[in-house]
Parts: sequence; structure tokens; C-alpha cells
Amino acid sequence: MAARTVKLAVIPGDGIGPEVIAEGLKVLEVAASQHDLAIETTEYELGAKLWHRTGETLPDSVETELAGHEAVYLGAVGDPSVPSGVLERGLLLRLRFDFDHHVNLRPVRLYPGVDSPLAGVGPEDIDMLVVREGTEGPYAGAGGVLRKGTPHEIATQDSVNTRFGVERVVRYAFDKAAARPRRKLTLVHKDNVLSFAGELWQRVVREVGAEYPQVAVDYCHVDAASMFFVNQPARFDVVVTDNLFGDIITDIGAAIAGGIGLAASGNINPGRDFPSMFEPVHGSAPDIAGQGKADPTATVLSAVTMLDHLGVPEAARRIEDAVAADLKTRAQSGAVRSTSQIGDDLAARVAEQG
Amino acid sequence: MAARTVKLAVIPGDGIGPEVIAEGLKVLEVAASQHDLAIETTEYELGAKLWHRTGETLPDSVETELAGHEAVYLGAVGDPSVPSGVLERGLLLRLRFDFDHHVNLRPVRLYPGVDSPLAGVGPEDIDMLVVREGTEGPYAGAGGVLRKGTPHEIATQDSVNTRFGVERVVRYAFDKAAARPRRKLTLVHKDNVLSFAGELWQRVVREVGAEYPQVAVDYCHVDAASMFFVNQPARFDVVVTDNLFGDIITDIGAAIAGGIGLAASGNINPGRDFPSMFEPVHGSAPDIAGQGKADPTATVLSAVTMLDHLGVPEAARRIEDAVAADLKTRAQSGAVRSTSQIGDDLAARVAEQG
Ligand SMILES: CC(C)[C@H](C(=O)O)[C@@H](O)C(=O)O
Ligand SMILES: CC(C)[C@H](C(=O)O)[C@@H](O)C(=O)O
Repeated sequence: MAARTVKLAVIPGDGIGPEVIAEGLKVLEVAASQHDLAIETTEYELGAKLWHRTGETLPDSVETELAGHEAVYLGAVGDPSVPSGVLERGLLLRLRFDFDHHVNLRPVRLYPGVDSPLAGVGPEDIDMLVVREGTEGPYAGAGGVLRKGTPHEIATQDSVNTRFGVERVVRYAFDKAAARPRRKLTLVHKDNVLSFAGELWQRVVREVGAEYPQVAVDYCHVDAASMFFVNQPARFDVVVTDNLFGDIITDIGAAIAGGIGLAASGNINPGRDFPSMFEPVHGSAPDIAGQGKADPTATVLSAVTMLDHLGVPEAARRIEDAVAADLKTRAQSGAVRSTSQIGDDLAARVAEQG
Repeated sequence: MAARTVKLAVIPGDGIGPEVIAEGLKVLEVAASQHDLAIETTEYELGAKLWHRTGETLPDSVETELAGHEAVYLGAVGDPSVPSGVLERGLLLRLRFDFDHHVNLRPVRLYPGVDSPLAGVGPEDIDMLVVREGTEGPYAGAGGVLRKGTPHEIATQDSVNTRFGVERVVRYAFDKAAARPRRKLTLVHKDNVLSFAGELWQRVVREVGAEYPQVAVDYCHVDAASMFFVNQPARFDVVVTDNLFGDIITDIGAAIAGGIGLAASGNINPGRDFPSMFEPVHGSAPDIAGQGKADPTATVLSAVTMLDHLGVPEAARRIEDAVAADLKTRAQSGAVRSTSQIGDDLAARVAEQG
């Protein structure tokens, strides 16, 4: 019997979601069992199908059940048949907000053997950790519409930033930066234009930074940072930024590190008041769903972040090493494998290392 | 005597600003004279020096004088000795707002011979026109701070979007798209999260688009668009977007098209109620100021946009052709030229074509 059991809520979701989640679980379970950890999964059918059937995105009773787990593992939700925003706001963002996932953790790393669209860059140039705020900023949902449908219509969209919210994510980012070899933290914002929010972020970074004299602090406007991700990615180690800027730059990060098929993320509640949620950055890709064409690697890498969060770093490194080895051979062999073949290969590699 | 005289206000600004503006004017004057156009310049000393001396960024009397010109040509403003935002908001953005520059026009084009940081892309892959809204959105300056300096501090930053403001820039973008060979327009926004503003933009694009059946309309979330700029830039022809998203994606555009040294922009008031303003996208680069190292090409290309706006497209094409030819030889020769040598070479090329 395993020494510890983790109750994991699984939301396979739509499109390729169920396919990639199946492989993620396959690999996760092998790694966990090697470290005396049992994963007890409960599956929840949320997403486009539920919405079409019932009009609901996240029934309160389901949210309560989810809250009873240690972590949530999510594939992808979304379908062209559902209006834009319904599942994003009604499910994904609702969970991020209700479960207080104030750290949205997104590693951006170019693994050896992976092709970057950038010419002449290698793994040593792209190795950063983006710490995106996850529970406020322009994602607060604040705003409104006046005189809708008339020539005098006004729509506002308000970014809400609190000392409390900014400080906790900045502190988290400094902790991460202090634990990495380069010990560098870059704040990305746009304080020359968004002066109210920008000044708060700058001040908090200055104040919290005083407690971390070993960490070098840099600042970059979001427009310049977006450019540097493309032409000087090696500038960055840990990046801390607001919810919307983080959304944008992590997609650039995904692009330069070989594409959205490899980008993992963790929506983290560091205090564990609620379960954290781990998901690939990619969407449900309905165009390739059900064909075994999806790359489950981003979902597998999201399990790495999960295991780190659950305090089982050895198991996390196992999976990460397996992924790194797999990506390296991929470049050499060039063979096309199905979603489940990639999952099998990764699981086998994890098992071998055991 | 020239058939027409254009009164041009020139703001050389700080850092490399004066150096690149000198070359821009040199080339502009040659091209203009070939088309019976005289350029009558008046220089205004605005920027860091004025601010240090007087505490002013844009005296009202100077703004009134600027308003009496047909166009403004700006190098770059900003210096590390001036707090972030002072010159941006007090000068650049003030002019954009007061002169109602609601179209911020930014071509993104990879010229033959120019190295892109993207592997395997050529000029045929990167040829777009970004139409960025310039007078509202998150740049409105709305917002505030409550309980500053306490643990309960809140800073808000409000994006203001009006039917009037969105419609006029969308219409401008459709006009541009209809006049280009590909006839494609992509709206970039984040309507799944920023639902109030996003829905307005979507609705306006739909409604105005009905008048342009020949233009194919696409939509991209800003995060996905930022990724596609890097790994599928050929997707884009004309892009229309909000002020902040436009700020970010045009810097990615600058990066993929060979760097900020080549990125031009026009802050345009299409109705000519006030002078439009033309400036390179880059900043004042104090680290290389005064050394003749700055590339004046972005400033020269901004004059292209100026001449198009002034209704002298033949002169604009002359300069554009000269720049294209210069960039091509640059790749071959590899010789390093000073700022003024590049300006001289461009002026000579324009003259030769005459
Ligand atoms: C789907 C969407 C709401 C989400 C976001 O904007 O955060 C996604 O883009 C992401 O990055 O996880
Ligand atoms: C300097 C700054 C205010 C400006 C902006 O944000 O618009 C710049 O980044 C630009 O893109 O012209």
C-alpha cells in the first residue's frame, strides 16, 4: 500500500482534452507509484457537453466536490459551438478565482532537440519561469457598458490591483528567483502608461526586493519584453507580471520554446486553502480531436508542476527527465507517434528510470 | 519654386532622436523636392532637457504652435534621469490625445536582405499593417489609487472604449484592407476575458465588415496572435486592435521584421483636424547617443508614412524603394556605416532614382 494517497479531480474537458489527460494520468501514475504515492482520481464531466445539456458551466455542488480534492488536473475546455467566454469565465476563470489561484506558474524552457522558431538559439538561451498573477488585474471582470447599441456606447474594462494581491505573487516570484542559479527577477508591466497599477507593482517589487538582496531585479515594459522574448530571450530568468501581460507573454514563451504543444501551467494556491489546478496552456483544438494527433507533452509537463506542488520533487524530476529524453530522440527519429504512443513511451521511460 | 509647401514641426527630442531626425529630414527633403514639394521645418526643443530646465513637458503655447503645422516629425524622447511616464504621458500621449491621433499606423514588413530572428521566414511571410487605436482603451489614463501605502491599497486602471472611437479606427482598417492584395483583416482582442470591450469591438467589426464584403475577416485572441506573430506571421495582412494590444504586438512585429531599428509609425488624424505625427517606434537609446551608431532607417520609413498621409505617394515610394535597396546591399556588404552615412546613402539613392 502507498504511504500517501492524493485525491485528484480530473476534468478531461473538450476536444483533445480527454486524449491528453489520459496520457498525463498514465505517466503521472507510474511516477507517483515509484515514490509511494497513490493517485485516486475522480473524473468530472465539465465543458461544452455539459453546457449544451444543462446550460451550466460549473454547478455549485461540483465546485464543492472539487474543493475536497488536493489538486485538479484539467485537459482543455472549449468548443466553437459555445459562445466565446462562456466556458472561460464560467469554468476556468471561476475556478482560478474561487480557488484563489493567485500564482499562475508557467515555465518557458527550450528542451534539447526541440526546434525553436528562433534562429540560432539553444536550450541555454531559453530557460525562464513566468510567475503570472492569477486572481486580479484586468481579469477581475469589472467594467460595464453604457448606451449599448447607440452611437454613444461606452464599454469600460477595469483592472483591479491590490497591495495584498500584488505582494503575495511578487513574494512568491522572489522565492523562486532566489532558488534558481541566476537569481534574477524581471518585473514586466507598463508603468509609463498604466501609472496607477504600474506604480503599485514597482513599489511592491522594490519593497519586497529589499528582503532578497541576493536577487538582481530588472524591469521591462511589456512591449519591450515581448520583443526581447523574440530577440533576446536569454535576458530572462524569473519574470513576474500581471494577469493579462502574463497571458500574452507566456504565449510568446510557448512559441519560442517550440510551440503550444509543450507549454505547461499550474494555477497555484500556495497556501493550499483550495486545490491547485494544473493544465496545458493549449486549448481543446477541436480540429484534431479524436484523431490521436495531439501531443500530450504539455499535459505531462503540467503533472511535473503538480508533483512539485504536492511536495514530491523526485517524482517530478523523473517525469521531466523522461520528457527531456523523449524530446531529444524525437528530433533524431522524426517518426510520427500517436498521442497514446507518446504517453506509452513516456511512461516506459519513467518506469525504466525507476 | 515648389508647387506646394508643407509646414513641418520637428521634435528631435533626446538621446539618438536628433541624430536620426537629421537623417530623416535629409532624405525627406530630397524626395519632396523631386515632387515639387517644399518642406518648411520649425524645430521644437521638447523632451528631457526642457523638463529639467523648466519642469514642463509641453507648454500650451508650444502645443498651439504645433497645431498650426501640417505634420509633426518626432525623433525620440526619454532619458533615465526623467521618471518613467513623465515624458510619455506629458508629451507623446498628450499629443496623440490632443491631436486626436486615433489611428496609430504601424507597417510590419520584412525587407529582402534583412535578417529576421525567425528561422526560415522570408519577405513573403511578413507583410502586414497594424492599425492600432490611438486615443482610448487602457491609455485613457482613467483609474486611481485608494489607501495608498497601506496593506489595503487598491489601484485601478480603466480601459475606456467608445462606439465612436472603435468604429472610426475599424473603418480605417477596412479601407486599408480593401486596398491591399490579400484583403484580409484580423481583429486582435481578448473578448473571452475582457467581455465588455471585446464584445463592442467584435460587434463593430461585424457591422462595419458588412459594408466590405470583399474583405475576409478573422479574429484572434491577443495571446494567440502574439504566438502566431512568431510562428505563423504569414497569417496576418491588416490587423486592427486596441491601443494596448497594439503597443505589444507591434513590438513583436518590430522584432520579427528585423528589430526596432527598422520599425516606423504614424500617429494619424485622418480628418486632418490636427497635424499627424510620425516617429520611429524605438526610444531615445541614451546608451548609444551621440556616437553615430543609431540606425536612422525607422525614422526614414516614418517619413514614408508621412508622405503617404500628405498625399504624395510617389515621393513615399521613392524613399521606400531606396530603403529596400539599401537594406539589400547592407546584407551583402556587411560594412558598418554611421548614422549620417546611412542617411547620405539613402538620400543619394533617392536622388539617383529622380
Ligand atoms: C482561456 C483563457 C481564459 C486563458 C487566459 O486568458 O488566462 C488562457 O489563455 C490561458 O492562458 O490560460
Ligand atoms: C513610449 C510609450 C508611451 C509608447 C506607447 O506605449 O504607445 C511606445 O511604446 C509606442 O509604442 O509608441
